[in-house]
Amino acid sequence: MKLFSSVNDVADINALAAEALKLKADPYAFQHLGKNKTLALVFLNPSLRTRMSTQKAALNLGMNVMVLNIDKEGWALELQDNVVMNGTTVEHIREAAGVMGQYADIIGLRSFPGLKNREEDYSEMIFNKFVKFCGKPVVSLESATRHPLQSLADLVTIEELKSRPRPKVVLTWAPHVKPLPQAVPNSFAEWMCKANVDFTIAHPAGYELSEEFTQGATITHNQQEALADADFVYVKNWSAYEPYGKMPAVTEDWLLKNDSLKDTNNAKVMHCLPVRRNLELSDEILDGPHSAVVHEAGNRVWAAQAVLKQMLEAM
Amino acid sequence: MKLFSSVNDVADINALAAEALKLKADPYAFQHLGKNKTLALVFLNPSLRTRMSTQKAALNLGMNVMVLNIDKEGWALELQDNVVMNGTTVEHIREAAGVMGQYADIIGLRSFPGLKNREEDYSEMIFNKFVKFCGKPVVSLESATRHPLQSLADLVTIEELKSRPRPKVVLTWAPHVKPLPQAVPNSFAEWMCKANVDFTIAHPAGYELSEEFTQGATITHNQQEALADADFVYVKNWSAYEPYGKMPAVTEDWLLKNDSLKDTNNAKVMHCLPVRRNLELSDEILDGPHSAVVHEAGNRVWAAQAVLKQMLEAM
Amino acid sequence: MKLFSSVNDVADINALAAEALKLKADPYAFQHLGKNKTLALVFLNPSLRTRMSTQKAALNLGMNVMVLNIDKEGWALELQDNVVMNGTTVEHIREAAGVMGQYADIIGLRSFPGLKNREEDYSEMIFNKFVKFCGKPVVSLESATRHPLQSLADLVTIEELKSRPRPKVVLTWAPHVKPLPQAVPNSFAEWMCKANVDFTIAHPAGYELSEEFTQGATITHNQQEALADADFVYVKNWSAYEPYGKMPAVTEDWLLKNDSLKDTNNAKVMHCLPVRRNLELSDEILDGPHSAVVHEAGNRVWAAQAVLKQMLEAM
Repeated sequence: MKLFSSVNDVADINALAAEALKLKADPYAFQHLGKNKTLALVFLNPSLRTRMSTQKAALNLGMNVMVLNIDKEGWALELQDNVVMNGTTVEHIREAAGVMGQYADIIGLRSFPGLKNREEDYSEMIFNKFVKFCGKPVVSLESATRHPLQSLADLVTIEELKSRPRPKVVLTWAPHVKPLPQAVPNSFAEWMCKANVDFTIAHPAGYELSEEFTQGATITHNQQEALADADFVYVKNWSAYEPYGKMPAVTEDWLLKNDSLKDTNNAKVMHCLPVRRNLELSDEILDGPHSAVVHEAGNRVWAAQAVLKQMLEAM
Repeated sequence: MKLFSSVNDVADINALAAEALKLKADPYAFQHLGKNKTLALVFLNPSLRTRMSTQKAALNLGMNVMVLNIDKEGWALELQDNVVMNGTTVEHIREAAGVMGQYADIIGLRSFPGLKNREEDYSEMIFNKFVKFCGKPVVSLESATRHPLQSLADLVTIEELKSRPRPKVVLTWAPHVKPLPQAVPNSFAEWMCKANVDFTIAHPAGYELSEEFTQGATITHNQQEALADADFVYVKNWSAYEPYGKMPAVTEDWLLKNDSLKDTNNAKVMHCLPVRRNLELSDEILDGPHSAVVHEAGNRVWAAQAVLKQMLEAM
Repeated sequence: MKLFSSVNDVADINALAAEALKLKADPYAFQHLGKNKTLALVFLNPSLRTRMSTQKAALNLGMNVMVLNIDKEGWALELQDNVVMNGTTVEHIREAAGVMGQYADIIGLRSFPGLKNREEDYSEMIFNKFVKFCGKPVVSLESATRHPLQSLADLVTIEELKSRPRPKVVLTWAPHVKPLPQAVPNSFAEWMCKANVDFTIAHPAGYELSEEFTQGATITHNQQEALADADFVYVKNWSAYEPYGKMPAVTEDWLLKNDSLKDTNNAKVMHCLPVRRNLELSDEILDGPHSAVVHEAGNRVWAAQAVLKQMLEAM
């Protein structure tokens, strides 16, 4: 594997999830692969889980890791071409990416969307430029429109915890106080549409995701109906795709509580975290037996390790 | 050892100090213990010595280290329970701690007091919640009311440099321009009260520490009297315990100079650092033969290494 | 080697450059040298290339690395002696350096000039105090007046890419929107004056460098004349040495374009990076066959590794 930016970069998602679970059972068996190899983790936006889990995955494989919190270190990158850089940006992404490619064998990049210009965000301009100019294998640590390491960890979690061969998985919208990217739901949707699951998306009117990601999913505005017989309930807020980055008013109560789960198949509740308690998800669910969120976060290690392992093997 | 948060977590402080000195003589003898084990150092407040020395200690033991400067990375944690998180906090300490516990084998946590609400600070709410929800062994990197890695390094320094079996140790208050926590003096006091030393605390009226930490110490308001025949003089500012976090006016001159040491037993002067020169401690002492402050800081490595070693051995 | 702060610390620059190229061919041959040795990289100013390349160099040698971004972590150091520290500085450089020396075997330090007081900047007060008080070998990661790791990487690049035994090297000033230090041109000049090259410096009137660094160089105000027959063109902005840190008006166009290179010996264009496109250097050069800037940045690893290797060997 040379690039891990979406589900389309993976030949067989079930095989990759299976490999992640094998690594979970035997984490240190491939340390020879990473010897004298360096992973650079480059963050244009903050990260907790992704940073720690990917770092741990690389260490498990015997790699060295360098972390760059570009966002916090005052290193403003120029992203546009053909401009005179006489403003506040100090380095062009062409040079920055090219130079990082000199110092690392694999690079992870996080770059959130601006949520102002849909065309620009959905072109994945920043991520794609970085891939082009760094000249090394790149792992997305969440880009403008996708978060594939999260989605792979989610698939791993579902494979690990499912109680029937083809579980029902529901992605349900949740409230928030500010507009969030569509990256996590987009990505989860495109992975679930390829996974061996029965997949439903529930969201209020106005929160339709781009159809590019939801082919094959059942889509409804009725949360309670969607939850019937669900094995996994994935909770996540996102802002509207149209009008882009806005938060159309929602009158119904979309906050999941224990009572919401009564018609499910004793569902596990998932969330990519961080989660705002009692806004996105209730205390009673997060502190009760339905919650799989911390377990799911733990699986981020094995998802990242499976991807890095395939990249190291392809060198 | 599963928890290192105060002197009460240590079965035998003299044995632990002796172990630290053995590690100082032979730092790399236990690298098998840390193989494939990860230490996460989580800072809610800035750190220089604690970060570097604990990182070095872990590396000496063969561990991997991940550093998280949560305070600088804009990751505002919610600490209160049963709130609707519709404000500025992005993640609850329950999830944050739980997730970090998935990625690390041992976690170090630094969390300073607010100095506004004594009951809250002295309940060690943040530190204790973190311990509860992370599910892994935790080392205090300084909490609201204690700094045990510092105190162990102080005991190690005294054991190493003492010229008689039961030295006299004096903790003396020093001036400062802003209110500082009581964590270092509290912790030093509770360790010295259990150590094989003759222990005196000197401070101006109004700067009494909580009696919880000072059982067995001689307490005086007369610095000069306290210093007579002292082998070690530990200099430190702290704010008042009552009224909490305030700085009652002090009319006498508490700044230690060479002349202040004339009646001591050629005392070594200690300070946890950072120290404000000529405010807390004079140039002439810091640059002269009495000063042990840099040597003391060096011993932070061996103190941390002894604690981490016991935690690794208990896994 | 105990100190790497300028060309004067190097016995034989050609031998050092040759060693760097040997390490480039065989990066991992000396990992026994760095075993259980720790490099601390201390930044009082931001860094991308220097941090990553020096970290990679140390890892290649088997060392551990600790990075401290002092500038971003709110740890304001006091640099003046004999002051009462009752202001905003929290620790004196004497203690900070001394303590870091306890935790590291080699220390790298970056400290930019203030560009306000020439005498102070050119005394290298901060760098020299750090060297004095830390008590360990120190590598400059760019000081107020020099950037020797960059200059060594530049020499390595020239040695690697030259097409005749004694190439012509031209350092040419470039425009910028704000005053930059003289460290890179000073340092490049003093290395080139000792290297086996024909060395010319071109800059507008008013941008003379201190003669301390330029002994033996041909100096001209005519860029086009200087470029004739050049093998390497090193592009860099700097502010005036007199009046110090100012930007005297420049009326001619100093921005290098492809056409500017027509009389060169098919010159390679170098720049230490970061570079502001179309202000310091044109897109057409950076994206064309003349550019060596990313390759040059890659050589930072081998320059740093050669220096660290010599320091480890001297322990």
